[in-house]
Amino acid sequence: MVEPNTVVIGRKSVSNYVLAVIVMFNQGIDEVELKARGEAINKAVEVYNALRDRLGDSIELAGVEIGSEYSGTRRVSYIRIKIRRAF
Amino acid sequence: MVEPNTVVIGRKSVSNYVLAVIVMFNQGIDEVELKARGEAINKAVEVYNALRDRLGDSIELAGVEIGSEYSGTRRVSYIRIKIRRAF
Repeated sequence: MVEPNTVVIGRKSVSNYVLAVIVMFNQGIDEVELKARGEAINKAVEVYNALRDRLGDSIELAGVEIGSEYSGTRRVSYIRIKIRRAF
Repeated sequence: MVEPNTVVIGRKSVSNYVLAVIVMFNQGIDEVELKARGEAINKAVEVYNALRDRLGDSIELAGVEIGSEYSGTRRVSYIRIKIRRAF
């Protein structure tokens, strides 16, 4: 289940996700959550860093959550990065 | 610079790092930091989850920090996962 303010990080390029988040902030959404599992966890951190580069202090890191969850019968690691708009 | 209570996650297996952390806790260290950069970020989350499986409520997640830093002239993403012993 994907909530409206969640961006699921997958196989697309970092800049693709960066743009998706910027569009959401410009639509008036105040908090966006990047969610990634397994191999994509690393990319989620890259997306956060790229947003930080582009938007500077206009965003703040509202929280980072890590854990594991079931995907069918397989357990996978996940990260959720909450980013808040501060402009 | 690696601090005494830091475990730098690299190319070794997850269970290798899990063991390193358990040994540190048994030596009386109260807080261990997992540090990983780039591709290893994902593995750091796996190490945390494996520790959670083995030690359950005997550990608590004290904080997760993400960001980027320079490695020579290259910028790389990093994660720091602070784990506290609660036994």
